[in-house]
Amino acid sequence: MDLYPESILNLIKSLSTLPGIGRRTAERLALHILHAPLHEAQTLANDILELKQKVTLCRTCFSLSDQPECRICSNPRRDASIICVVEKPTDIVAIEKSGAFSGLYHVLGGALSPMDGIGPDELRIRELFSRACSKTTTEVIIATGTNVEGEATAAYISDQLRKKGVNVTRIASGVPMGGDFQYVDQVTMQRAMEGRRGF
Amino acid sequence: MDLYPESILNLIKSLSTLPGIGRRTAERLALHILHAPLHEAQTLANDILELKQKVTLCRTCFSLSDQPECRICSNPRRDASIICVVEKPTDIVAIEKSGAFSGLYHVLGGALSPMDGIGPDELRIRELFSRACSKTTTEVIIATGTNVEGEATAAYISDQLRKKGVNVTRIASGVPMGGDFQYVDQVTMQRAMEGRRGF
Ligand SMILES: [Zn+2]
Ligand SMILES: [Zn+2]
Repeated sequence: MDLYPESILNLIKSLSTLPGIGRRTAERLALHILHAPLHEAQTLANDILELKQKVTLCRTCFSLSDQPECRICSNPRRDASIICVVEKPTDIVAIEKSGAFSGLYHVLGGALSPMDGIGPDELRIRELFSRACSKTTTEVIIATGTNVEGEATAAYISDQLRKKGVNVTRIASGVPMGGDFQYVDQVTMQRAMEGRRGF
Repeated sequence: MDLYPESILNLIKSLSTLPGIGRRTAERLALHILHAPLHEAQTLANDILELKQKVTLCRTCFSLSDQPECRICSNPRRDASIICVVEKPTDIVAIEKSGAFSGLYHVLGGALSPMDGIGPDELRIRELFSRACSKTTTEVIIATGTNVEGEATAAYISDQLRKKGVNVTRIASGVPMGGDFQYVDQVTMQRAMEGRRGF
């Protein structure tokens, strides 16, 4: 295939590695970039590099941030007495879009999965316990996934926290079983948040 | 919208400017890049910049090239006695995919369009005439578009070249009227190429 110069073929190849971008779409995107103003292409390339350089994890909640502390943790208008526990940073996006929660988050970095060698020490559970046991915390809402690992993680954390005298709740099973939170619609997420119950 | 750190929002915004990439797809791509290995992201950014820096026009046929002369013009196995005239570099891709042509190309850089102020001097027509009148050229195939401007361009060039005693042909109207050559299937393009006729 030598229909294009090498530098166009290289970009087509790189774009094809992105999810949902087939060869034909990659070709179309590469030709668009070729004809776009130079500053647009430079901005795109620069944004890719900046993303990789700057995005890190918030030192408090471990969500994505390009500052030491994320926008939510450093926002004085958020209710610091409630902590919502999620598996991954993108789960926060679905909950924030619902507008049903104004507290802080805690990102575990996954779910318990003994089969895959993921125990409590592989997740940020110790950090959660330390935040949950501070005097300012009045409630910990567990919003881990509704699949086997997510449920096991919720059960483990709630057991441990109740032993420490912490008020723990679980979001209602309005969220579809086994689904990825990223694709949950806002109303369902609102219902799930409102219908949360004690363990 | 402060669901993501600024550097993620920037990349989502840049990706959204690409054709066919909506907000949701841009979000998905940005998160993929965020979690992809650093070298993959660097390769993608680098390929975008190299494309803009390196791709230029072939000094002979004016198609896309990252060398002074393109792969087709510098390929000794191509038949240098036949020149196929197209409007844009991407038209060449459709013709090459058909496998029905083994000569050289000439990219006009557009079509005649008096309404838009595009006359013969705005296209690479003088350069075509100089190539067409060389002793090695036995045929000039005109493969400009089948819309009004493409037909007018074909008529103008064929008139001028016949006056100079050059053998000029037009690809058959197997190509759909008004369509972009990029989306022509290979069989249709083969038929069109085989069915070319004199003016
Ligand atoms: Zn944070
Ligand atoms: Zn060339």
